[in-house]
This record gives sequence, structure tokens and C-alpha cells, in this order.
Amino acid sequence: VANAFRTKGGKSYYDQIAQDTVAMIVNDLIVVGALPQVVNAYWAVGDSAWLSDEARSSDLIKGWAAACQESGAAWGGGETPTLVGTIAPDTIDLAGSAIGIINPKERLVLGDKLAAGDAIVLIESSGIHANGLTLARKLADQAPDGYHTKLADGRSYGQALLAPTHLYIKLVRSLMEAKLDLHYMVNITGHGWRKLMRANQDFKYVMNFVPKPQAEFDFIQKQSGSSDEDMYGNFNMGAGFAVYLPANQAAQVVKLAKAAGLKAWDAGRVLSGPKQVVIEPKGLSFSGDSLGVRS
Amino acid sequence: VANAFRTKGGKSYYDQIAQDTVAMIVNDLIVVGALPQVVNAYWAVGDSAWLSDEARSSDLIKGWAAACQESGAAWGGGETPTLVGTIAPDTIDLAGSAIGIINPKERLVLGDKLAAGDAIVLIESSGIHANGLTLARKLADQAPDGYHTKLADGRSYGQALLAPTHLYIKLVRSLMEAKLDLHYMVNITGHGWRKLMRANQDFKYVMNFVPKPQAEFDFIQKQSGSSDEDMYGNFNMGAGFAVYLPANQAAQVVKLAKAAGLKAWDAGRVLSGPKQVVIEPKGLSFSGDSLGVRS
Repeated sequence: VANAFRTKGGKSYYDQIAQDTVAMIVNDLIVVGALPQVVNAYWAVGDSAWLSDEARSSDLIKGWAAACQESGAAWGGGETPTLVGTIAPDTIDLAGSAIGIINPKERLVLGDKLAAGDAIVLIESSGIHANGLTLARKLADQAPDGYHTKLADGRSYGQALLAPTHLYIKLVRSLMEAKLDLHYMVNITGHGWRKLMRANQDFKYVMNFVPKPQAEFDFIQKQSGSSDEDMYGNFNMGAGFAVYLPANQAAQVVKLAKAAGLKAWDAGRVLSGPKQVVIEPKGLSFSGDSLGVRS
Repeated sequence: VANAFRTKGGKSYYDQIAQDTVAMIVNDLIVVGALPQVVNAYWAVGDSAWLSDEARSSDLIKGWAAACQESGAAWGGGETPTLVGTIAPDTIDLAGSAIGIINPKERLVLGDKLAAGDAIVLIESSGIHANGLTLARKLADQAPDGYHTKLADGRSYGQALLAPTHLYIKLVRSLMEAKLDLHYMVNITGHGWRKLMRANQDFKYVMNFVPKPQAEFDFIQKQSGSSDEDMYGNFNMGAGFAVYLPANQAAQVVKLAKAAGLKAWDAGRVLSGPKQVVIEPKGLSFSGDSLGVRS
């Protein structure tokens, strides 16, 4: 998206993509209660000439370093192989890994304390994050103005897709420091809101509130002719992270999120019952077998 | 190479490529004295159809699991993204990361104990390992029989290139358990024998023995018209790993390597002087500034 959206001499957006990549890594780490210590980069190119675009390389490095810093982690190093014939010449495969520490060990969160009656607090996303991009890119190819198509909120489609993924580390750190009784946390990534039932146990997750999705989701839904079920089943729809804890602590999460610069909503409850996610305001439900992720 | 060399219904070789990948990761980890605990996989494809070739996928999984087991590490999980337009459809980007533990902490090896008079013990490679493949592949395209070209030792060129990279973990573990005074260890990967001067300090590394390189190196040298300097400066030439320690302990490394099924040679000495690698039997020397790696 960045390569296609970039204008001659214009911003490369690779600083934002770097944050997306680091966010995908550290956001996955913190859900178990670990704080990231070291992030390593794996940047594979198909042609070493990729790195000779200095503006782009420099943005990538700056964005990666800034995201590591915001995560409280050191950038440990990494590997930048040139894989001729595997990676397309003008693209880059951005990945990485992180190591975190759970300390004290009581901070470990695996979901075993999840219980009927728990609140589900949703935290805002910054947009599409890094999931569902294959469809999103296809739609740009079909729109007359491509990534320059104006959305209802005035931003261009490309700009909206490139909004860097939120790093939820600051919020999670503050929840742990406030000693909230965190029962479970999950990123809403691939599989969209179906991810809300990612914990091992069988529960019914009933959502009685949905945030207003960003304009890019409306655009994607209209252009692709997708149903609400498709959209909530595959995109984050404005909510990128969920925290599960005793209902009487939900308001504190909303307050600490606000302090971390993030909107949050006490949006649902965990109930007894066979595994499913129910989104009441949309009249949707997803059964447990619709979530094909490893437990 | 595996894709090109595979015959219809024949072996996929992805078990061997899996070992190459795991070896690149854990061999890099053990040089500081860490034993790998967990290996994570990052397998990026350009088309999810890649995974539907069951023989290939199954070989990849089996080979990865076996290499983790040989390394004494658990396979922690991983990520298998589909990156449309970035990864070529019939290829896969195989990477990963590992976490190790240095215990007791006296096992930490950073090279600060490296001293004039130390022996440099070379450990055999299994062939090209995973470095210099871009040139090696180009030569296959130019040879009439491609990867099926017979080498002097009777193996085909493809078979030779696909020999799985040695895992040096068993050897390094036994060196540590024997409480040898390890001053430094290095993998001979990209930059070939120039890697022998990878330590921070300025020393002259004088090699008075070179092992006989495998037949694929002769083939590459002849077909590409490369000099010895090109070859030793870019390929491992039969030696994949080096151990630096007091000269009176060199024989023990050779013995422990043999017990681990690996040939080893007391092949050189660390001397005072400006940073360089001298390969006496070949009349070659590489100056410190020819090694462009991060210290």
C-alpha cells in the first residue's frame, strides 16, 4: 500500500509500516502479561537495491526504533537477507521477534481465571491495523482513484490504511501497575471479532455495544458488498484489543486507557454457555467452530 | 534449489531446507555460549496454495521438528503469513528466531578472552550450508544438466547444494560440559573465511592448514572462474565453524568433535598484529577492512 500510495518525492510511509510490524509483535507478547525487553528485526528483500532508496530505508529504521522505544524494548539487531526470486524486487518482507519478561510471575495471564460475569472492555484500533489488507488492496485496484479515493471523513483511502497500528503496551503496563485482576487479553486481528472467543474455555461472549468503525471499514464494506457478518468476522471494526476482568474493574480500564490516549468501552460480558460471540447491536453471532486458531 | 531439483513424485528436500533454517538460527545462538530453549518459525508464503502440496509441507514440518529436537529446543510456534505480491507464489520465505539460556553465566563467550597464541580449531561443514546460493543457483542455470550435473565425487550438484547444514550444538554443548576454556566461536557463513576475524579485537589469524573442500566448491570455482581469494572470501570451503581456545586444549576439541560425528582440525593460531586473516597454504591474506560486518 505504501509503495502504491507514495507520490514522487513524497513521504514513504515506511516509518508507519515499521510501527505496524513492531506492533504486531509486541501486542501479541503483552497479552500474556509480559513486558517486551528486546525486539529483533527480520527484513528480507529480493534485491539489495531496495535498501538504496535512502528516504524509505531511513523512514523504516526511524519508525522501527521509535516503536521499540515506545514499547520499552531495545532493538536487539536482526537479519536482512537478500532472497533473489523469493521476494519480489520492489517489496520487502518485514517481520521480527521479541522477548519479554513476566515479572513478578503473578502477572502471567493465560485465561484460566476467565469467569462468567467478567466484563469485556474493548480498546480502540487506529483503523485496519495489519489484517485484511489483501481484500483492501484489491478494492483500491478497482476504485477509479485507487488509494487516492476520498473517504467520508475526508482522508484518502491510502492514508487511512496506512495509519500505524496502535501499540497497546503502555495501556497494558498501566493495567498491571494498577494491579487490576486481568483475566484475559486478546488482540482483534485476523478473524475479526471472532477472536473475542480465543480463550480455551467454552463461554458465551455477549457484546452489547459496538464502537463506530472508521470510514475505511464503511468503504471496504460498500465496495466489496460485504455483510456485517463478513466485516465483524474478519476486521477489527474500530476495536483492536480486548481486556477481560471482573465487571467492577471495567471503569478503571476505560480511565487508564484514556490516560494512555486510547478510547475504551465497557462493551460486553462473559456468560456461561457453548463457545460463541454474540454482537447484539448487529444481530450477529459466531459459533466456536468458526474460529480456526490454535488454542 | 529444492524446487528446481525435485523430480515429479520425488523427494521434496524441504526436510533438509528446514534443517538449514534452524541451523542458521541456533548455530548463531550457541557461539555466545547459550543453549537454545525455544525455536519459533516464520514461514511466509505468497499464495496459501503453497501449503497444499502435502509432501512438501509435511517434509518441512518433520525436518523443522527434527532439527529443533537435535538442538535440544522446543518448537515454540510461529507465524505463517500469506504475503500476496511480496513472496513469489511457488516459493516460501523460511526464517525463525530462537531463545537460549547461558547457564551458568560463566559460559558467556564474547571474545574478550581471545589472546595471542590461541589455537583456531576448524570444524567441518557439510557443504555450502546456506551461503553463496545466489551464485550457486546462477551456475546451475548455465550448466547443460543444471542441478543434475555430476560432480567429481559422483553426487549431483543439486544433491550436494541441498546437503543439510550441520548443527554444531551437540559439539558446543560437549565443549562446555568438558569445561574447555572457550575464548571465541564463530560460524563461517557469508564472507567465508573472512569471518575468522569477526571478534572485536585486532589480531592476526594465521591458518596453516586448509581442509579439502567438497566437490561442489571445485565445481563452483571452475564454472564461475573464481580465484581462491573469491572462494575463501565468500564460501566456507569445507569448514563451517571455528573454535578459539588455548593451544593446549585444541586436541580435546578435535576429539570431542569426532565423538559428535564431525571432523575437526587444529588449523591456525591467533597472533598479535593488525586485524587480518592469513591462509598460508593458499598464499592468501584478507585485511580487517574487507570484513563489513557489525561487531
